[in-house]
Formats: sequence, C-alpha cells, structure tokens
Amino acid sequence: MSFQNPVFIPGPTNIPERLRKACDMPTIDHRSPLFGQILHPAREGVQKVLKSDSAEVFIFPSTGTGGWETALSNTLSPGDKVLAARNGMFSHRWIDMCQRHDLDVTIVETPWGEGLPAARYEEVLAADTGHEIKAVLATHNETATGVKSDIAAVRRALDTAGHPAMLFVDGVSSIGSMDFRFDEWGVDVAVTGSQKGFMLSAGLAIVGFSDKAMQATKTARLPRTFFDVHDMAKGYANSAYPYTPAVGLLNGLNEACGMLLSEGLDNVFARHTRIAEGVRAAVGAWGLDLCATAPEFYSDTVSAIRTPEGFDATRVVTHAADVYGVAFGVGLGEVAGKVFRIGHLGSLTDVMTLSGIATAEMCMVDLGLDIELGSGVAAAQRIYRADAALARKDAA
Amino acid sequence: MSFQNPVFIPGPTNIPERLRKACDMPTIDHRSPLFGQILHPAREGVQKVLKSDSAEVFIFPSTGTGGWETALSNTLSPGDKVLAARNGMFSHRWIDMCQRHDLDVTIVETPWGEGLPAARYEEVLAADTGHEIKAVLATHNETATGVKSDIAAVRRALDTAGHPAMLFVDGVSSIGSMDFRFDEWGVDVAVTGSQKGFMLSAGLAIVGFSDKAMQATKTARLPRTFFDVHDMAKGYANSAYPYTPAVGLLNGLNEACGMLLSEGLDNVFARHTRIAEGVRAAVGAWGLDLCATAPEFYSDTVSAIRTPEGFDATRVVTHAADVYGVAFGVGLGEVAGKVFRIGHLGSLTDVMTLSGIATAEMCMVDLGLDIELGSGVAAAQRIYRADAALARKDAA
Amino acid sequence: MSFQNPVFIPGPTNIPERLRKACDMPTIDHRSPLFGQILHPAREGVQKVLKSDSAEVFIFPSTGTGGWETALSNTLSPGDKVLAARNGMFSHRWIDMCQRHDLDVTIVETPWGEGLPAARYEEVLAADTGHEIKAVLATHNETATGVKSDIAAVRRALDTAGHPAMLFVDGVSSIGSMDFRFDEWGVDVAVTGSQKGFMLSAGLAIVGFSDKAMQATKTARLPRTFFDVHDMAKGYANSAYPYTPAVGLLNGLNEACGMLLSEGLDNVFARHTRIAEGVRAAVGAWGLDLCATAPEFYSDTVSAIRTPEGFDATRVVTHAADVYGVAFGVGLGEVAGKVFRIGHLGSLTDVMTLSGIATAEMCMVDLGLDIELGSGVAAAQRIYRADAALARKDAA
Amino acid sequence: MSFQNPVFIPGPTNIPERLRKACDMPTIDHRSPLFGQILHPAREGVQKVLKSDSAEVFIFPSTGTGGWETALSNTLSPGDKVLAARNGMFSHRWIDMCQRHDLDVTIVETPWGEGLPAARYEEVLAADTGHEIKAVLATHNETATGVKSDIAAVRRALDTAGHPAMLFVDGVSSIGSMDFRFDEWGVDVAVTGSQKGFMLSAGLAIVGFSDKAMQATKTARLPRTFFDVHDMAKGYANSAYPYTPAVGLLNGLNEACGMLLSEGLDNVFARHTRIAEGVRAAVGAWGLDLCATAPEFYSDTVSAIRTPEGFDATRVVTHAADVYGVAFGVGLGEVAGKVFRIGHLGSLTDVMTLSGIATAEMCMVDLGLDIELGSGVAAAQRIYRADAALARKDAA
Repeated sequence: MSFQNPVFIPGPTNIPERLRKACDMPTIDHRSPLFGQILHPAREGVQKVLKSDSAEVFIFPSTGTGGWETALSNTLSPGDKVLAARNGMFSHRWIDMCQRHDLDVTIVETPWGEGLPAARYEEVLAADTGHEIKAVLATHNETATGVKSDIAAVRRALDTAGHPAMLFVDGVSSIGSMDFRFDEWGVDVAVTGSQKGFMLSAGLAIVGFSDKAMQATKTARLPRTFFDVHDMAKGYANSAYPYTPAVGLLNGLNEACGMLLSEGLDNVFARHTRIAEGVRAAVGAWGLDLCATAPEFYSDTVSAIRTPEGFDATRVVTHAADVYGVAFGVGLGEVAGKVFRIGHLGSLTDVMTLSGIATAEMCMVDLGLDIELGSGVAAAQRIYRADAALARKDAA
Repeated sequence: MSFQNPVFIPGPTNIPERLRKACDMPTIDHRSPLFGQILHPAREGVQKVLKSDSAEVFIFPSTGTGGWETALSNTLSPGDKVLAARNGMFSHRWIDMCQRHDLDVTIVETPWGEGLPAARYEEVLAADTGHEIKAVLATHNETATGVKSDIAAVRRALDTAGHPAMLFVDGVSSIGSMDFRFDEWGVDVAVTGSQKGFMLSAGLAIVGFSDKAMQATKTARLPRTFFDVHDMAKGYANSAYPYTPAVGLLNGLNEACGMLLSEGLDNVFARHTRIAEGVRAAVGAWGLDLCATAPEFYSDTVSAIRTPEGFDATRVVTHAADVYGVAFGVGLGEVAGKVFRIGHLGSLTDVMTLSGIATAEMCMVDLGLDIELGSGVAAAQRIYRADAALARKDAA
Repeated sequence: MSFQNPVFIPGPTNIPERLRKACDMPTIDHRSPLFGQILHPAREGVQKVLKSDSAEVFIFPSTGTGGWETALSNTLSPGDKVLAARNGMFSHRWIDMCQRHDLDVTIVETPWGEGLPAARYEEVLAADTGHEIKAVLATHNETATGVKSDIAAVRRALDTAGHPAMLFVDGVSSIGSMDFRFDEWGVDVAVTGSQKGFMLSAGLAIVGFSDKAMQATKTARLPRTFFDVHDMAKGYANSAYPYTPAVGLLNGLNEACGMLLSEGLDNVFARHTRIAEGVRAAVGAWGLDLCATAPEFYSDTVSAIRTPEGFDATRVVTHAADVYGVAFGVGLGEVAGKVFRIGHLGSLTDVMTLSGIATAEMCMVDLGLDIELGSGVAAAQRIYRADAALARKDAA
Repeated sequence: MSFQNPVFIPGPTNIPERLRKACDMPTIDHRSPLFGQILHPAREGVQKVLKSDSAEVFIFPSTGTGGWETALSNTLSPGDKVLAARNGMFSHRWIDMCQRHDLDVTIVETPWGEGLPAARYEEVLAADTGHEIKAVLATHNETATGVKSDIAAVRRALDTAGHPAMLFVDGVSSIGSMDFRFDEWGVDVAVTGSQKGFMLSAGLAIVGFSDKAMQATKTARLPRTFFDVHDMAKGYANSAYPYTPAVGLLNGLNEACGMLLSEGLDNVFARHTRIAEGVRAAVGAWGLDLCATAPEFYSDTVSAIRTPEGFDATRVVTHAADVYGVAFGVGLGEVAGKVFRIGHLGSLTDVMTLSGIATAEMCMVDLGLDIELGSGVAAAQRIYRADAALARKDAA
C-alpha cells in the first residue's frame, strides 16, 4: 500500500497535509478551556459554511448516518408522517431508517439519475390539508448517482403548498463543496459529515438545526441519548460535551472551515465546478453518458459514468485498484454494475484529476472498451487550460 | 499550549507515538480489500483483550455512550425491566439512558465510593421469580469515584438466583487496563471506547456481544439504525461497514491490540496495578483518603482523592492546569468539589506518574493544604523502586 | 502551498508516507544501544543497495556535495592529480571542488548531452605511465542533462590502461534508482545522498569506500575533520558518531533500504525504466528532443527536454509552478533556458507521472508551443498499459 | 522503545510537537520562491536569537562540528596561530580540529570544571605583540562539564590587550537557552546547531559571521567547498543554496525562532535558569557536588553531577536507561565515570524536570548511594513552587 496516488472515491476525500496535522493532536483535557477554543470556532465555521446566521450546529462523534438519526430522533415521534423521494441509494437508506424508527413515510419513487421531483412534493403536500406530514426529506446530492437536486425548489413546493412541515436536507456530499444555503432555502435540519467537503477522515456527524427544528425537539418522543441535541447544547454552554469528544477531528474541522472560508466559499464551489466539468468533458470524449440524465442534475462532487450495455462497470473499479493502485467508486443499488464513479470533491487539484482521468482511460482500454487513450485527458485539459488562461488574464 | 506534560485525566490517555502514527493515515478506499486487513484483525484483537473466544465484536464511530446505547437498543424493547446499581456518575448516566429509552429500571442506590452490591443484586433477582428483568447493568470501574466492582460476583448473583437476565458490563475505564473476562464471567454485552485502555483518541465505541445477546437482538424492538449490530455484522461479512468507517482509528485500534497482546495482558494489568499502587502510596503519605472506601474497591486506572472538609478539591485541578500545565480530573456529581482525580491508565510510565504526583503535591501546598513536598513522590518511588529491583532480580 | 501535487524535480523526490513517519521520530539518546539498532542496519542496507559485499559505508549529516568532499579529502593530498570529464553541471562542480582543494585536474571536456568518454579516459590513463593520476572521477548520472554514463566502461578503461588510479563515482542521482554495481565495477568511492533514490529529505551524504580507498586514507593529507572517515569508523565501532547524528533521517534511511530491498533492486530499476520510457514516449509525441543525444545516454531518473530554438525553456517551469502548482526542474549551466527537466525518480507511480506529463503539455500549449494536448499522455499510457498487461499476463 | 519519557541528555532535546510538525514537511521545490519564504525568516530569526543586528547567518546541513570547521576554514590559512583554552571535551575537540587543519594552537590548559581563564587569555594576547594570533576560541558552555564561561570577559581581554584577533565562540549548548550577545561581546564567529536551544533534531550547523570575519574570508587559504560561506551567500542572494538544502529542518528552525522570540529571549533564559536551579537544589539535597566548581560557572543547560569517589557515575546513566527508560548523559573525557549529566535545555517544563530528578534519585538509591528518596524532588519543588507563586503574584 503506497498511499501515493490520490483517491477518487466520493468521500472520504484526499486529506490535505494541513488537516492531517490538525487532527494528529496529542491528548488534551477536553474539560479544560482549551477545548472551548476548538469547539466554538469549529461550530461557528460550520455555520458559515452552511450560509446560516442562526443554525444551531451540533457535531457528534459519528458519521452522516448518525446525522440522519439525529435529525429524525430529535424532532419526530413514533408514527409521525414524513415525505421523501427515493432516487438513489442514500435517499433509500434514509427512508429505511425512518421506517425502522416507526415513522410513516410517503415515498415518491423517482428514477435513479434524476433529481428530487419538487412538483410531486408540492402535490403531496398540497393534498395533506391536515398537515400530518411533519417533515420533508431531501437528499441534496445523491452520491450513488452523481445527481444534484434543487433544494430551493423543494422549499418553494412547501411554501406554495402552504405546508408547515420541516425540511430536512442530506447535504453529506454537497456541503462544503457545492452551494448550500441553509437560511435562504429555509432548511430545518442539514446533515453532513467530516469526510467530504470538510476533507477530513470519517468520524463526525455535523448537523445544523433551525429554530423550528429546535422547537420540535421539545415534543419529539423518539428515544435518543447519544444523539440528543439538548444534552449536546447543554454541554456546549459549558464548552464541553455530554461525553468524550473527538478532539483531534474537531480541531481538524475548525481548521477545515478556516481553509474553506479563507479560500472563499464561492471560490471553493467554482473550483469544484471546474474540476467536475473537466471530468464531464472526459466522459463526453469517451462517448459515454453520465447516470445523471440532464445537465441540471450534474453533481460537482461525483460523476457516475454509465458503461456500455453488457459491460460490468465494477470491473473498471477493481482493475484500477489492482493494476494501477487507484480507487474509484462502484455503482450501488439499482445502478450496481452499470456505473462506476469518479469522486471529485474536497482537496483535489486539476493536476490530480487528470491522473484519475488518465487511469480510467487505461482501465477501460485494458478491459476492451472502445476508448481512445488520451482523449478524455485532452478534453479535460482544455477545460483546465481555459480556466488557467482566464485566471492569468484576471490577474493581469 | 505546549503538549509537553503528560495528562493525568482518566481518559483520553496519553497516546503512544506508535498509535498516533497508526491513526494518522492517508485516505484509503474503505470498500477495498485493504480495509478488511485492518478491520478483521482489529476485531480479533479486541476479542482477545476481552478474554473471549466467541464474543461478536462491533466497533462504531462513536464513544462509550454510544456503546451503552448499542447494548440497550439492540437487545431490549420498550417497557423491559433492567436492574442497575447507581454508585457513581457513569452508572447514573447509563440508568438515565435506560429511562429515556422507556426501560423500567430497578435502581439499587449504592454509596459513591463502594462497588456494586452483588448481594443486593442477588436478592432482587431471586425475588423476580417471573424473570421480568431482562438485563442487569454493571459498571466495572466507576471512573467518577475510582471504584472497581466485582463482576464475577455479579455473575454469581445471577447464577445463584438462577436468573436468565443478560449481564451488560460497562468496561469503558477497565478493559485493556484491568483484568476483564468476558467468557469466564458470562458477560453478555461488554462496552468500551477507544480512548482508555486502548490508548487512542475518542471516536470508537467498542462492544462485544455474547450469543445470548445476539439472540436477543431478534426480538428487541427499541428503534436503532446507526447502532444496529445486524447492519454492522452484514457489513463485516463483506469486510465493510454499513456506512463510512473511521479507518485511521480502526488502524490504531488494531495496532493498540497488537501492543497490548504483545506486552501480554497480564503484564499490562500488573503494570497498571504497580503504577496505581504508587499513586495510592502517595495519597497515604499526604494523609489523604481515596473516595474508594476499601482496598477491594481500589481502581487501578483512576484514583479519586478526597481533600479535607471545607476545601474545594476542584481548585487543585484548576491550579494544576493554570500554573503547571498539568491536567487532572475534577470530581463529578455527588463528589464534585470533594475529590480530584488522577488518571493512571493507558500509556503511562512510572517516571511520568512521578511527575503527576509531584505536581499534585505542589498544587496542594500552593493552595494551603498541609502536605509535605516530596512526601508522595518518595512513597511512590518506594513502590516503583521495589518493583524495579524485583524485575532485575527476576531477570538475573 | 497545498502540497497536493507530486513534485517532478530530479530530487528531492516525493517522500513516501512510510518514510516520512520513519523520519519524524522523537528524540532518543544517540549514545544508547537503540541507536546502534538503527545505524548498523542502515549501513548494511546501503551496502546492499550498492551491490557490494565489502564497501565501508559512511553516512554524514550533510549532502551529496559533502560526499564529494569526503571522497577527495580522505584519500588525496594537495597537488595530487585527478582525471575528470565535464559533461554537465554536476561533473563541473566536482571538478571545481577538486581545484579548490589544490588538486590538479586533467579535464576532458565532453559535450553536454553525452556520457563520459571512456575511450578518452583510457588514452589519458595510458599516457600517464608514471601513474601520477591518483583518482578518476565519474558522474554516473548527470542530473543536469539527464545523461547516464557507462561506469563499467570507465573501469575497463582503467584496466586496459593498467592504471592503478582509484575510481570515484558520483551516484547521487542513480544509486537506488538505476543499476549500480560497486563491487563489479571496481568502484573505490561511491557518493550519494538521502534525497534521491532513497526517497528522503536532503540531509545525509552517503558514501561507500573500497579497501583501496580506505588504504589511501592513511597517507592522504588534505585536511578534514567533519568528513573524516576514520573518526566516523571509530564511532561506528561503538555504535556511535563522532558528533551528533541525524537520527530520524538515519531511521528513514534504514526503512528506505528495507523498502528498496523488499521490492527487489532489479524491480526498482525496472520500475524506473518503465516510468522513464513513458516520459520519453511523451517527449517523442510532442516532437521534442531530449538533451541526451543517444538512447545509450538516456537517464531513467531525469529527462532534460529541449524546447524549440528561441523559446526560453525556463518559462515552462515557472508557468507550471505559478499556474498549476507543479514543480519541474530548470536547465542549469550550459543548457539553462534550453531545457526543462522532468524528474522521475524515487517514489513515483505511473499514475502520478501521467499527471506530470499532462501538466507539461498544458504549460507548453499555454506558452504557444505547437503541442497537441493529450498526445504525450497517450504515448505514455501506451507504455504504462503495455506494462500492466504484461504484468497481468505474468501473474496469470 | 516507548518514547514516553522525556530525555535528559544535553541535546538533542525533547522536540516540541509544533516543531516536529514543522520539520515533517512534504517535498517542495527548493528552487521555487516558496523556499525563500522559509530561508530568509529563518536567517533573520537566528540573527535575533544571537542578539545581533548585522551578523551574516549561514545554515549548513551539518552539525555543530561542521560549524566549527566553517569558522576555521573560511577565515584562516595553514599555519595561522589561534589561542584556545581546554577545559572540557568540546573545547578539546575544537583544538584537535585546529591542529588537523594545520593551525598552530596556543593551548591554555584549564581545570575541567572551571570556565575560560580570561586573565590568561589577556596575558597571552598582550605578549603577542606581533599580532600573530589570528583567532581566539572560546567555548561558551562546556557541555561535558556543565560549565559556563564569561565571553564578555574574553572580549575585554582582547580589548585590554589591544589585540585584533577574531573571537570565535562555540555557543552550541548555550545559544537559544542562555544569554548570548553577538554584537555586544564583539563575537566574530558564533557556532551552534539545531539540536539544542533550537529544540530540533540534529542536522543543521548554524553560524553567524561578523563583518570582520567576512573580511577574513577573502584571504583565508584553508580549503573548503561544502562549508564555503561565499558559495552560501551567493546562493542566499537568489533564495537558494549551492546544493540541496534540508528544507524541513529549515522550516523547523524558522518556527523555532518564532517560538523563542515570541516567548521573549529573556523569558526563555529565565526559564532555563529556573529549571536549572531546581536541578541544582536537588543536587544539593542529595549532598552531591557539581563538576562546575563555583556558582559563576554553573550552566543553565546541563548539570554534570559528581558521584562519590569510587563509584562509577556511568552506572547511573546505564541503570536509568535499562530500568526506567530515561536518558541522562555520561561523563566524557577526563570526567568519564566521575560525573553523570542531566541535560535541562530546550523544550522542558518544571514538571518534566521533576520526573528526571525523581528518576535520578531512584537510580542512585538502587545503586547503593546514600540518597534520600524524594529529597531532591522536594528541593526542586521548592524552587518551582516559589516561582509559580511569584508568577501568580505578578499576574494578580
């Protein structure tokens, strides 16, 4: 295991040197004032990354899945109704969690490759005149299909229907990499993890709660202790945790927010878009299609690439790992064997991305697909060059 | 913040160089075979540390509190009866968690400073002729009071009463530092974390389930997803996780098990005993008492030291941090202000311990207590010397 | 500074994770037995990398330049004659050092781009019937021009001329990356550093002395203390140094030798050849020439690439650094502005190399050279693919 | 090897976390502008630590011994006269180096345990009416004996004698830990290394040259290349080195200067004095003597402790390493077997020091010396407490 090549999985991402060092911290007393000097700026940093002025940020030693559970168990009661669309593996899993927690889920089945159907949401919500639906679930970026959804449209659906349900957004593979607007979109709970846009190892569930969501916690009867936001809030008020915090990762999160905010969120997003466009240009040059069925759905953090009928896309991933020591993502669920995925989020340069594209090319040629070596690289280079040229012009 | 002095909190412990490096790992694909090469040996290592041949080991990106929740939510249903004694802050919290998860807890109040009352357990169990009690909770080492309990005695209480309840043991501050016998004691669920005997950062809940506990999961109706052991087991069968694992910490856990097992568990325990005896000798030399009321309760991982009436013990901790840059533990709950705690578990040498004892002495003298400088150090040195002498004799 | 992209300078190389950790070592007592456990295996490892059974290996806290000085000052006296060819910046500098140390150098001027002229060496040596020439200097791999020389031929020249002069070889940018045969070639002093084939930071001069060279130290009158091999040998006999050693780097060197030897030296060399061939294929696809004038001179560790007449090759390097965050090497001395260099030694994968080639392409296109994007990458991919295919066939 | 205990050798010191991270740096292009951003501030930082406005600072990948050679070979010619006192192992070695470089040394033998005899220097200089003596050598702190010398007095001796010789000062174990005044004392060459007051690994020779010393380089005829300050100065003017620099260590040096200067040099010196006084109080409590024969000679960076007649002091060091895992320094040269040394320089807290003192006590008792356990610790605690009390008073 050489660790020399970048990884191209859709998270955990490549960890920048600076963040590895921030996480690799000797033990401190997590009940000392020093801990507050890590905790509070980290929470404030996350709030800014969420583009929120008021979200209560909670950070659990857990993962995005724990973040989902935090959202549900703190705000809902057994039997509560929630509305959710299923358009990929991660929306599917969140729905499954709802059902296991005795929630009553109205599922809008949506083709894998398409975004969330805001219009269908609106219909369902408008029909729910008794306002029995307590929460609407929305996966901002389906990591399994490389599909981005329009959260602002979901908010409009709620508003148009005049429905008071809370809006819960899974931003695990979008927050910190793609534009996310907690306040503007009226998000009630946003969920993410440390290992995507924040460029750290897995180990933190990061959630933001709106005032409305905090109100809902008062009557929510789903059992919770580890993920209880009140215990957590009480701890934070004393610069502490209700149990032992993951100090090094929190220190890394604080540093990661600093990196993102100092680069400028919009610059971070533009960088992700540019890198993603290079990958998409390569896919086009190969004559292949994305799983995402239309440009409005294209994700800037992960591309799921359909291989030709009859070809097992997972072979690309296995071959890349075995022969070239490069990690791509396999297809999951409905698209298993049909797509392979190139993760392009977090700490990644144009130059690193070109090596991933070059590797995918070699793999596909090795496996007999009709791909021209260098074609995808050249297409991506054109994107990356143009950008460099513009940047130079701007700077001049 | 210099990080130069050791910490003397009862976890997280000082992290050995080798473990810091094992955790500080570049990103790998957690769906690649490499991950299995970390996961499986780590689970086997934990099993050995538990002294078990058969425990199913599960490792969650969480903490000991999440381990408690794993124990309860996977094996019990709302309304189930459990038996627990409250003899410190951590047993108190586990009881609180039970109640928040709709369990019906029979609480045996026990003086803080004493161990679990096995005789009382036996009475309650014998009286429960209908076997409504599904689980008995036992905190092996009360971190708040520095009190060790006799888990074998709790097992005997169950056996004598002929009661089929499961035995759940919180071994957070004992496992890996003090003798723990999962199989011999008939433990059904053992709970610990990464940041104590395993000498790592916080971030992993580590649990062992007996066959009986695994059977109980089939009928348990408390909701769970993040902490579901079946999802986890299904993942493990594919060398994977149901969500993103904390790979670096797992790698560290694997290495930590290697360190403990290669030193020899009984040597590790003897080392903890020797270091603890040095601390206790110092406490005696200072003319102070432990919170633990009898030698059978003395913990080998943490000593809670009573300061004289009318003196706020927390001042020792604050003073040590402010003036000498050394972290001790404050008293919690009923013993807040009455004790300060010296953690002496995990990666600690006699030499490091002497510096902690010397610091405590300076603090107490600074704060006006009638302590002779050097007296505790000398008492501990006598313990550490004797041991060194014996070791040399043995080696000769 | 993101540190994310690989470097493509001809040393220091990219440092493998494992070696960074080996070097990043807490302080130990360098007079304790532990130090010998690092020192002796490191020296033995170097000996094996030199393909020698008997070379005395000395390791100084210094660099290759210090290694040159070690060679000269320990074996020669003021006024001694040495023979050297000048075919690049590094052979030039070694000659300059000789002159500054009062040695009388017979210089064979050789075109930059060609290897050492063994035939001319033979003529000069044959003419030196009085055997006044005490040492012959030979730069195995001219880092400035990307030119490899035939050391075996130089040895034959000495033998054919029946000349007893010592053979000193600068293997700074070859040892550990290209085949080097201390014993077979009758090398008397070999010089290298830590930051090339050994994949470490700069900071160690590594030299091997033959018995003959050790004999010569007895009469050599050039002043020396820091670089005195007798002081060093005396220290080594006590597992020590005559002054404070660079312990972490030595630990890294030991580990580096372990990596090289466990991969197998011939595999390491074949890997360097394959990666170099990819780069050379790219250069061909771009329609450019190497500075090395014939295939027999092609270096497997660095390629110096001539840009078209009238184009300042240094601009490629500056542009790559400024716009793409990638480091290439500039031309030095006679070829400054005429070539840019791609270092491809040490810890480098095919995949990383492709990103360097892709970057060079973008730079040249950005700067107006008539290069087709993707062309060099495709040419290299063909090399890297073929190899992968063969490897798979072999393994099958 | 646990790396858990601090080391108490007189360098290399314990490396602060922050400096380990600064040194553990990925490869950068040392010919890129980034390198200048490390080099120049590091040189300026050293200048400030030297308390000089004008010293030319040179930093070689080498050690203090290389720094000595730099001083001699750049400023002197074969046959030049130098004046030096021998009062310990390091002054002895520098004299030896002079002789090996064909310098004519007037040696003032001085008892090991005493400082440099300024009065004798003055006599010799006054007698040298022809001003044949070109340089006076002065070891500021004899690491072998724990003896500090009065460099200002040596300067006065030169001035009183009206002698133009250069003043070369070995500040290896003083600079950065004890007051050093390059400008005020009229030092011409100051020599130190990275592994003492700068708290880094060994690997850098750090020297400061006065204008006068720089002038002397123009006529100096001792051969030099690796250590040539003109080559180095020429490199620096281009933010570069004449060969490959040790970038990570330089980055660490820059950070180390930042730490020292931000703490305040006088605070750093006072801290060393306080810690040293604690050690000396312990020695007194043990009824032992220092090798340094009078308080004016007491070194604040290392204490050489005489053990009773007939007792082999080296046993303390061996025993501490074998039994307690703690590194002290052995006696060297004339005082081998008569003293053991406790290094107390660099990154060391009072608390760490107490653990060293406690260990020394245990060792001496183990080995049969008549020492009271805890006595030295208590004596040191009194010093460290008093200081803490004062500091608290000041802060109030």
